[in-house]
Amino acid sequence: ALIALLPGDGIGPEVITQARRVLDALDLDLTYEEAPVGGVAYHSVGHPLPEATLDVARRADALLFGAVGDPTCDSLERALRPEQAILGLRKHLSLFSNLRPATLFEGLEDASALKPDVARQIDLVIVRELNGDVYFGEKGRRTTAAGHREGYDIMSYDETEVRRIARVGFETARKRRGQLCSVDKANVLETSQLWRDVVIEVAADYPDVTLTHMYVDNAAMQLVRNPGQFDVIVTGNLFGDILSDQASMCAGSIGMLPSASLDDAGKGLYEPIHGSAPDIAGQGKANPCAAILSAAMMLRHSLGNGAAADRIEAAVAQAIRNGARTADLGGTMSTSAMGDAVLAVL
Amino acid sequence: ALIALLPGDGIGPEVITQARRVLDALDLDLTYEEAPVGGVAYHSVGHPLPEATLDVARRADALLFGAVGDPTCDSLERALRPEQAILGLRKHLSLFSNLRPATLFEGLEDASALKPDVARQIDLVIVRELNGDVYFGEKGRRTTAAGHREGYDIMSYDETEVRRIARVGFETARKRRGQLCSVDKANVLETSQLWRDVVIEVAADYPDVTLTHMYVDNAAMQLVRNPGQFDVIVTGNLFGDILSDQASMCAGSIGMLPSASLDDAGKGLYEPIHGSAPDIAGQGKANPCAAILSAAMMLRHSLGNGAAADRIEAAVAQAIRNGARTADLGGTMSTSAMGDAVLAVL
Ligand SMILES: CC(C)[C@H](C(=O)O)[C@@H](O)C(=O)O
Ligand SMILES: CC(C)[C@H](C(=O)O)[C@@H](O)C(=O)O
Repeated sequence: ALIALLPGDGIGPEVITQARRVLDALDLDLTYEEAPVGGVAYHSVGHPLPEATLDVARRADALLFGAVGDPTCDSLERALRPEQAILGLRKHLSLFSNLRPATLFEGLEDASALKPDVARQIDLVIVRELNGDVYFGEKGRRTTAAGHREGYDIMSYDETEVRRIARVGFETARKRRGQLCSVDKANVLETSQLWRDVVIEVAADYPDVTLTHMYVDNAAMQLVRNPGQFDVIVTGNLFGDILSDQASMCAGSIGMLPSASLDDAGKGLYEPIHGSAPDIAGQGKANPCAAILSAAMMLRHSLGNGAAADRIEAAVAQAIRNGARTADLGGTMSTSAMGDAVLAVL
Repeated sequence: ALIALLPGDGIGPEVITQARRVLDALDLDLTYEEAPVGGVAYHSVGHPLPEATLDVARRADALLFGAVGDPTCDSLERALRPEQAILGLRKHLSLFSNLRPATLFEGLEDASALKPDVARQIDLVIVRELNGDVYFGEKGRRTTAAGHREGYDIMSYDETEVRRIARVGFETARKRRGQLCSVDKANVLETSQLWRDVVIEVAADYPDVTLTHMYVDNAAMQLVRNPGQFDVIVTGNLFGDILSDQASMCAGSIGMLPSASLDDAGKGLYEPIHGSAPDIAGQGKANPCAAILSAAMMLRHSLGNGAAADRIEAAVAQAIRNGARTADLGGTMSTSAMGDAVLAVL
């Protein structure tokens, strides 16, 4: 299988290097093509998502992505900023379904700001829609009747978009504890009301899954109060962005959590949920576990090799139990030493 | 001064009764006019915000509000649902600035899901814009070119709206620790980019306040990881809705936190941040502290009586230190017993 390797900005290259080492150690039949994305791509060829990179991405069976984000690009026009690389890949490749598991690794109870008995309950997946919502609606600047500057963005979902992500939510819940919580703001937003109506329609095909609905403000509260109540959460692009980062921090370990962004056919982009962390880039301090676990998700979801995925995940969990700790986990291990620790278990 | 008393739905009347008892005990020169809002108003006169209620609200110097929300109204058309009462009051009275303080009361360390040393650091105010954003933009249902149902909502802010709430943020920070964090999603939304541009312009008038910017997903993470880093957060209507509920739960005590919604002249609506809690309504289980503390905020912000506000706040804090606990705080006290406990200290 062909893997597009997209290390990107900041700590992206460092963590992807370790993920690649772990994949290499498993002797899988993989070939790699590396391509620039984000600020790195802008600085070298003038665009955050160059045609050549998009071409590799289209040809590949799966994409392993580091991170994008570069403060030196902050004042560029929107279309040239690093974030457009990830938004563009999601859209061009129809990667509409974002799976973000959040669990607390055994031994990391101290890393969470939550009380250990609360944090230990966390075992959830957020299913976030990635191709619609206010992210991709018409947006711009205009002048009001009174002559003032105004910024606007149109939020919307149509029933086909809601239906396909709802199905992913129900399917995910069916393979887990059978509990799906749909998060919206239907008491205020028409987009949310349509969302809720369609999710309820889809529920008819999944009598074995228990569906509940929660307003997003309440969900943000409940994720702190009692995250153990959630099995699978399905939500739109914007609410999913906020809640998934929050959930990962409840699990105490932004450096430990992977994500998958999938199309209809199982092709996917795999990335750590952390960002490019420019403040520690190039210093060998970053935790590579989220990237390594993203590689495991790739093997499971796009390459049909669940066994290899299980092996990697078990190795990371064991390394953590053995006491391996990068700085984000309160330790002193370097990025490559953490990679070594995982490889040693493998 | 004339107070509009708007108890509303669910536990609203129970908690407002206790707030009223506390106000009465202080022998202030207040007169009250009570009026129905929310589901109660819909059921009695067919509208969640009747003209007569709006009239009382307009004439009053301040509004003391319980809660709205009634599951029996869930299938009504949007304009008739209980939530429209609070949205309508905010808009009709130009209550654009919502202040939501979050602090951990001494003795309630156990009530927070956060570790005590993390929770004890929380001392922040969220300044949320209330009259704009995707809440009040054009919204509706339409049919796509392909013939599918679509829901849409327009998000927008113009510079005058951002400027006035930014000023409230800076003024609030100036009276506290001088740190203002503006939360947006400027890497994706044009509304947020305009927001950020205008906040930066306003900052020129407040050289004594340190301004930072944070993306909303990161803010949701940081509020769990290290809420002590925040002094004042200023943000839009939608992000403020989510983050303020999250922050209140980090402080462990959704039943303890009040809020103020102010216009330009200091007239305000005061309400607990908790909702109508239909599941426990009428059972005398609700915690009245948030309503009592809302009355204190009313005395301070709209009635120029900071001394009386201080007395009420000190009495609530002392009652909690004395061990007074309703069910939400792990105790068994009834709503009126908690009111008694506060009155006993006063
Ligand atoms: C970088 C940014 C555009 C992106 C998003 O908002 O989707 C990120 O926060 C994420 O969650 O992957
Ligand atoms: C009831 C609802 C419309 C309201 C809001 O979203 O503003 C509530 O959640 C709040 O925060 O006061």
